[in-house]
Amino acid sequence: MRTLTPEPLTAKAFAPFGQVLDVREAQQLSINEGLTTRFNDLANVQFDGEGARTLINVFRSTPVSFPHKVCIMERHPLGSQAFYPLGGARFMVLVAPLADTVKSEDLQLFISDGQQGVNFNANTWHHYQLALDQQSDFLVVDRGGPGQNLEEVTLVGEAQILAP
Amino acid sequence: MRTLTPEPLTAKAFAPFGQVLDVREAQQLSINEGLTTRFNDLANVQFDGEGARTLINVFRSTPVSFPHKVCIMERHPLGSQAFYPLGGARFMVLVAPLADTVKSEDLQLFISDGQQGVNFNANTWHHYQLALDQQSDFLVVDRGGPGQNLEEVTLVGEAQILAP
Repeated sequence: MRTLTPEPLTAKAFAPFGQVLDVREAQQLSINEGLTTRFNDLANVQFDGEGARTLINVFRSTPVSFPHKVCIMERHPLGSQAFYPLGGARFMVLVAPLADTVKSEDLQLFISDGQQGVNFNANTWHHYQLALDQQSDFLVVDRGGPGQNLEEVTLVGEAQILAP
Repeated sequence: MRTLTPEPLTAKAFAPFGQVLDVREAQQLSINEGLTTRFNDLANVQFDGEGARTLINVFRSTPVSFPHKVCIMERHPLGSQAFYPLGGARFMVLVAPLADTVKSEDLQLFISDGQQGVNFNANTWHHYQLALDQQSDFLVVDRGGPGQNLEEVTLVGEAQILAP
């Protein structure tokens, strides 16, 4: 059984899987007669397939219980999926490299400080939301429209996450 | 000089201008083994033109000073623009009907309770962000890509907003 320990979410470490949405690292534009700072274009949103459209959703997640056994990983072949925390609560992000299967030794666990969101590239294996500490809301931008946009696999091997 | 008084933001009253993003009114889906509620597809995001892409941004806005004189209105011909409050602070939304000009008598002022976002339809005349009470962050989903996506006009007539 592999036990996973989270590493801090940084743009560089997360680059194989997607982007970190972090105003502290973003391009800043002054607009609205100087009253507003626009932290511009935080994610590489990409949707494929006929009839694709942009969905804006809110996900309200209950924290997982620890130790959390990793069983299923999922991916969205037709589009990226962005999560941005609405309440500033930290959360974890579990991902795996592009491949037909997901092995426990390939898993990578990150932790957001609550000011960072993530955007999974299309086809990136990830675990469902790993909220911590409290019920947490996220704004989610993902792909709508026709087509099969969800794949799930059972983890090869065993892995668990302890309370961070 | 017209003095504007805000009305509560409701889906019905705002329908000519766009959608109200409100989890309390949204379709709810249970996902992630029951740990997450997905408040699904809160806005009618529509982007036109060659090379259009979805931008995710954060706007950080300083409150306007009151009385606030309305001078300029803007619109985005190539795409909708969604604002979702990150901190739960109330804000105002000033819009006007589709037309070549914007007259003071046509303005309509709404106030969000801080749990509601808005999505302006493409081509909807609106004022820049009217934050209230405190510096306020919003997640903004709008259109990127080539093309002229900003028009501004000077208000015909005079209007002001008092502190709500």
